[in-house]
Amino acid sequence: MANSFGHLFRITTWGESHGGGVGVVIDGCPPRIRLTDADIQPDLDRRRPGQSKIVTPRNEKDTVQILSGTFEGLTLGTPICMWVKNEDARPEAYSEMATKFRPSHADYTYSAKYGIRNWQGGGRSSARETVGRVAAGALAKKILREGFGVEVLAFVSQVQGITSNVDLETVSLEQIESNIVRCPDPQAAERMIGLIEETRQAGDSVGGIVTGVARGLPPGWGEPVFDRLEADLAKGMLSLPATKGFEIGSGFAGIAMTGTQHNDPFRSIDGKVCTVTNHSGGVQGGISNGAPVYFRVAFKPVATVMHEQDTVDSEHQNTTLKGRGRHDPCVLPRAVPMVEAMTALVLLDHALRHKAQCDSIP
Amino acid sequence: MANSFGHLFRITTWGESHGGGVGVVIDGCPPRIRLTDADIQPDLDRRRPGQSKIVTPRNEKDTVQILSGTFEGLTLGTPICMWVKNEDARPEAYSEMATKFRPSHADYTYSAKYGIRNWQGGGRSSARETVGRVAAGALAKKILREGFGVEVLAFVSQVQGITSNVDLETVSLEQIESNIVRCPDPQAAERMIGLIEETRQAGDSVGGIVTGVARGLPPGWGEPVFDRLEADLAKGMLSLPATKGFEIGSGFAGIAMTGTQHNDPFRSIDGKVCTVTNHSGGVQGGISNGAPVYFRVAFKPVATVMHEQDTVDSEHQNTTLKGRGRHDPCVLPRAVPMVEAMTALVLLDHALRHKAQCDSIP
Amino acid sequence: MANSFGHLFRITTWGESHGGGVGVVIDGCPPRIRLTDADIQPDLDRRRPGQSKIVTPRNEKDTVQILSGTFEGLTLGTPICMWVKNEDARPEAYSEMATKFRPSHADYTYSAKYGIRNWQGGGRSSARETVGRVAAGALAKKILREGFGVEVLAFVSQVQGITSNVDLETVSLEQIESNIVRCPDPQAAERMIGLIEETRQAGDSVGGIVTGVARGLPPGWGEPVFDRLEADLAKGMLSLPATKGFEIGSGFAGIAMTGTQHNDPFRSIDGKVCTVTNHSGGVQGGISNGAPVYFRVAFKPVATVMHEQDTVDSEHQNTTLKGRGRHDPCVLPRAVPMVEAMTALVLLDHALRHKAQCDSIP
Amino acid sequence: MANSFGHLFRITTWGESHGGGVGVVIDGCPPRIRLTDADIQPDLDRRRPGQSKIVTPRNEKDTVQILSGTFEGLTLGTPICMWVKNEDARPEAYSEMATKFRPSHADYTYSAKYGIRNWQGGGRSSARETVGRVAAGALAKKILREGFGVEVLAFVSQVQGITSNVDLETVSLEQIESNIVRCPDPQAAERMIGLIEETRQAGDSVGGIVTGVARGLPPGWGEPVFDRLEADLAKGMLSLPATKGFEIGSGFAGIAMTGTQHNDPFRSIDGKVCTVTNHSGGVQGGISNGAPVYFRVAFKPVATVMHEQDTVDSEHQNTTLKGRGRHDPCVLPRAVPMVEAMTALVLLDHALRHKAQCDSIP
Repeated sequence: MANSFGHLFRITTWGESHGGGVGVVIDGCPPRIRLTDADIQPDLDRRRPGQSKIVTPRNEKDTVQILSGTFEGLTLGTPICMWVKNEDARPEAYSEMATKFRPSHADYTYSAKYGIRNWQGGGRSSARETVGRVAAGALAKKILREGFGVEVLAFVSQVQGITSNVDLETVSLEQIESNIVRCPDPQAAERMIGLIEETRQAGDSVGGIVTGVARGLPPGWGEPVFDRLEADLAKGMLSLPATKGFEIGSGFAGIAMTGTQHNDPFRSIDGKVCTVTNHSGGVQGGISNGAPVYFRVAFKPVATVMHEQDTVDSEHQNTTLKGRGRHDPCVLPRAVPMVEAMTALVLLDHALRHKAQCDSIP
Repeated sequence: MANSFGHLFRITTWGESHGGGVGVVIDGCPPRIRLTDADIQPDLDRRRPGQSKIVTPRNEKDTVQILSGTFEGLTLGTPICMWVKNEDARPEAYSEMATKFRPSHADYTYSAKYGIRNWQGGGRSSARETVGRVAAGALAKKILREGFGVEVLAFVSQVQGITSNVDLETVSLEQIESNIVRCPDPQAAERMIGLIEETRQAGDSVGGIVTGVARGLPPGWGEPVFDRLEADLAKGMLSLPATKGFEIGSGFAGIAMTGTQHNDPFRSIDGKVCTVTNHSGGVQGGISNGAPVYFRVAFKPVATVMHEQDTVDSEHQNTTLKGRGRHDPCVLPRAVPMVEAMTALVLLDHALRHKAQCDSIP
Repeated sequence: MANSFGHLFRITTWGESHGGGVGVVIDGCPPRIRLTDADIQPDLDRRRPGQSKIVTPRNEKDTVQILSGTFEGLTLGTPICMWVKNEDARPEAYSEMATKFRPSHADYTYSAKYGIRNWQGGGRSSARETVGRVAAGALAKKILREGFGVEVLAFVSQVQGITSNVDLETVSLEQIESNIVRCPDPQAAERMIGLIEETRQAGDSVGGIVTGVARGLPPGWGEPVFDRLEADLAKGMLSLPATKGFEIGSGFAGIAMTGTQHNDPFRSIDGKVCTVTNHSGGVQGGISNGAPVYFRVAFKPVATVMHEQDTVDSEHQNTTLKGRGRHDPCVLPRAVPMVEAMTALVLLDHALRHKAQCDSIP
Repeated sequence: MANSFGHLFRITTWGESHGGGVGVVIDGCPPRIRLTDADIQPDLDRRRPGQSKIVTPRNEKDTVQILSGTFEGLTLGTPICMWVKNEDARPEAYSEMATKFRPSHADYTYSAKYGIRNWQGGGRSSARETVGRVAAGALAKKILREGFGVEVLAFVSQVQGITSNVDLETVSLEQIESNIVRCPDPQAAERMIGLIEETRQAGDSVGGIVTGVARGLPPGWGEPVFDRLEADLAKGMLSLPATKGFEIGSGFAGIAMTGTQHNDPFRSIDGKVCTVTNHSGGVQGGISNGAPVYFRVAFKPVATVMHEQDTVDSEHQNTTLKGRGRHDPCVLPRAVPMVEAMTALVLLDHALRHKAQCDSIP
């Protein structure tokens, strides 16, 4: 069950970095949704390696194949299997990792857990696993947009110390895609790109923050008590590789306020209930209140660096290891479609759950 | 399913703030565990209202009753139902809330979702729902401690701007319980208590941070890819009332580092693999590496304040509302056993899942 | 998870025969359904011991208490906990069973599984566990009837060799309840009652068949491929104590036919698709076709008999045991509401799942 | 979720009869199990069309490809995706079915449910979907056999009126595979083959019974109360295409007995608890008692016959339809590996669940 996510729009991902390929099965997709490769490929292109000078040069086209669940361009309501073949795998680049654990990677923990691991390219712990999530997320975003009027976006809001200034009410996909770092603040974007290039040249890596936003939710999505919208979003985000933190609305900064300052007063505007501020992040008691849902996700600096580092080998002997292979100096630009995907998967699942329980019967 | 948490040690909570009572059913508890009220009551006492001058004076004894699943003081392997009656309920104190939505509470969102709500004391969205979690968590902590040698602790590490200095390797339950705010740094604790008392007198509220720590985990707990340990912890924490953020290990602060600085070098000590630093927070690739797991949870300032605030009524007309009833100026001290409970529930569930899949067969 | 059933209308039962009581938590009930004790008690009365001369004289009133999930007589959409106290428990009657395993009961298998068992009255394996199912089923039947126009009924169609003749299209609750054995064929009912009384006097027991029928389903309920309607019904029925078989539509008898004979031709009647025959039992490919769903459930003769029988004790020594305590010579009359309950739980769950996936979006 | 089965050894199948292919993802497989195509292909060969003169001549090689989850011939503990391409698909043979519903097939119900269907070869309702189950079942059988000493077998025990005589304690795979109808009673097998050939020539079809048996289970597998071993077996069997009934142990025939006759007396043999008879079918209270588990599954006669039959079209107009395409006159021989697969999937899942909850801690 650990490789599945969601209840009613449920995905199961499979595949390793080096092996036949990586894919996803989606169970529970509504029928009669128009679906072709063209709905999926653009997000895979935003995720794929080799897309720009600031990401890994591994050359994967990541061309999606839909193996089941559609007929004459429409979903059938049956499981949709989509996958991408692994093409530019170079296992030989990882030969040293057969016996040495890379620091702050999952080599040691997989080995400790399973007593075996595919040491080629990180195996299942590689970010390549997210291909399936992004493919499923592309479909979820489409259904949310066309069926529910909900728009899901994410963007890079911070790289190391470089912050940005973005209006969550108006930010658009076009603005996000206007530069290779996917930060819709052009000045900040330029500085971020510069920092990432410097970092690459120094053989090092940097982290940062991706902000996610969903606009157009009706009030009422989300389930008390364990499956609160923010709880499921937090799980979705922390299930992405390299993430270390999640905050919604005012988040950690809200601690500086008093209750009187933090509360979002309600006002009625044309008979519709709105909040004057949005410290809640669009969610109260785990349920959407109609305001935009927004949150921030912390990504650590990539663990692979081109410097000699202390580590141990599979015999538990001390040794050193220097990063090799083709890696990202910063995962943030490629993480944007991942954050969008997990957001859309959470929201669509909750949309269907709300429909099942709370829409009028029958 | 929204009211259940966990897979193999699975809890389902039920009950509203005002009504018959609140409780929990635990499914999947191993048999032959010694269990009596005395194993549960101490954590309920740490959670209960009226325990000190800095929490709500609502007077609930919260005496646990075990209705099923034990025989002669031992667990049977069958479902354990535990509950607590509601005694000091005062629905009349909430009469104004029958028609007005309290800002930043769940009144409006429950109403929008369900078209009905129990307006007495917040109903199901009340923190009173956590009674069941804390009861189940007390049992989970006991099994982790006695069966797996794992210790779970939480403490208040920050109230508004007041931070503390605590050693995660050595902090003990005794230190945490040595003062009413549950901060094991005595100087900080004193200042926190003062701030909370001032806040109460001002009719306002404050938030802060609870830090959780689990020590003694073997390497190998946690499931890639969606059920990473940190993903399930994040979900557990964000499912608690009033939480706005979660970070594990270096968290948001880790963004300031480069990869070279952030990586945790491995060293072999007496043949055992250890990390020199612990920016990872004890988890790599979603799986424990044997180092302490630690994380921080942001709690917003309590929404109930004794000041007049703008809001709307159930007819969507503008109005104002002033908090009444008996409330906490700061939830942090009572949140400590809740954070421990959710941590223990996550860890025990993963312990059993690891045992099922990875222990040698048969 | 073993004590839960259903996905969207999900029940979790708890409790042992001797102990605090037995109950159920329902998660996922739609909000704003009128619900009071009076909706539940009649089915508990049909299930309770002591209701007539042909069932066990154990005297349990089985008065339901609703502890949560309702407000002013309406469901809240939150978990509904209902329970019944154990009152006429006589553990001393079971003292011999503390050390001896009753043949064809679950004493030995519980002991082998858990290394412990509540030997008083069968503990969790007692049919008393079904109190929670019947209570939840009463609510599910009400929602199906009032919200979806679906009627669920069950009746005793065979006791040992005595068969009956009942029209599935017209059989009514009134006919079923017109006699104490719950067989709507009066002649057969009289003979069944006679046989059961004779059997009791002989200190023995008999089994038989309960037929279930659901009328008014729209075409389209049921989920390929694993959660076929008949698969979930089969699981629900075989999860009831003392059941040994399930067949839907033509069942085992259909084997005697050829495909040409067995197929149900379609005809259009006033533009509505109907089948001329109903060997399919209302289900094709796991999905309802609009015809009545009907099936038969085999119940074995009750294991408790008043004769000396060979068995072993907890030390695995050969011994003998003679049944004592208050038991049913035939479970069939009391099994009727259990079969209805499991049927309703399956159908309502599928109704909600169908709504979630296949109703138009949004 | 409807396309997944199991909890800890969880499979998700995907694919339609005509389309890219059919496959399965297995989540939760223990690591370090030796696994290559050679472990899977034999069961696919037993299931595949074209294997003998008494099954459909559709010519599918059904060569399995393992896409993920193994490394150097061993399982990794990560999801295993296996699939088979569709090769001999002939959609043109189904063109008439684009507008006409085949009687007692799922054409009408899929259409009613989803408002769309893949009319080529039955789409997802085709028995071709079971390829994924059989592949996963082959792995489950291997783990049960090598890891737990449990042997799972199934065989054809009845075709229409032709019954067989088989000893459940000694029947072997070799005996089952000694003839093309997979009935280990040679005289009965010969008559069955004759009947099936006649039936084919007559353009008709026949049904029958597959008996399943599992030997070597320890006492203690199975979960009260809903996930009883027999309940999960019943669900697994009724989820197979064309099944109409399930009975375990004495089944429907047990109704003729009294309790005194039906009970299985316990005896201690060399300190081990055994039953003298096995009317229980190896399961008491939902939990295995160490005796062989055996059950029977009723398969209806195949719905496709070469005779003109009344039906309706997609406009709900009356019409007629005559079967075409390549079909089985009797599914029984090919159903044998399907029944084995579902049995093994149920048992292995319960083995892992038992290990998680009841094996000593830690």
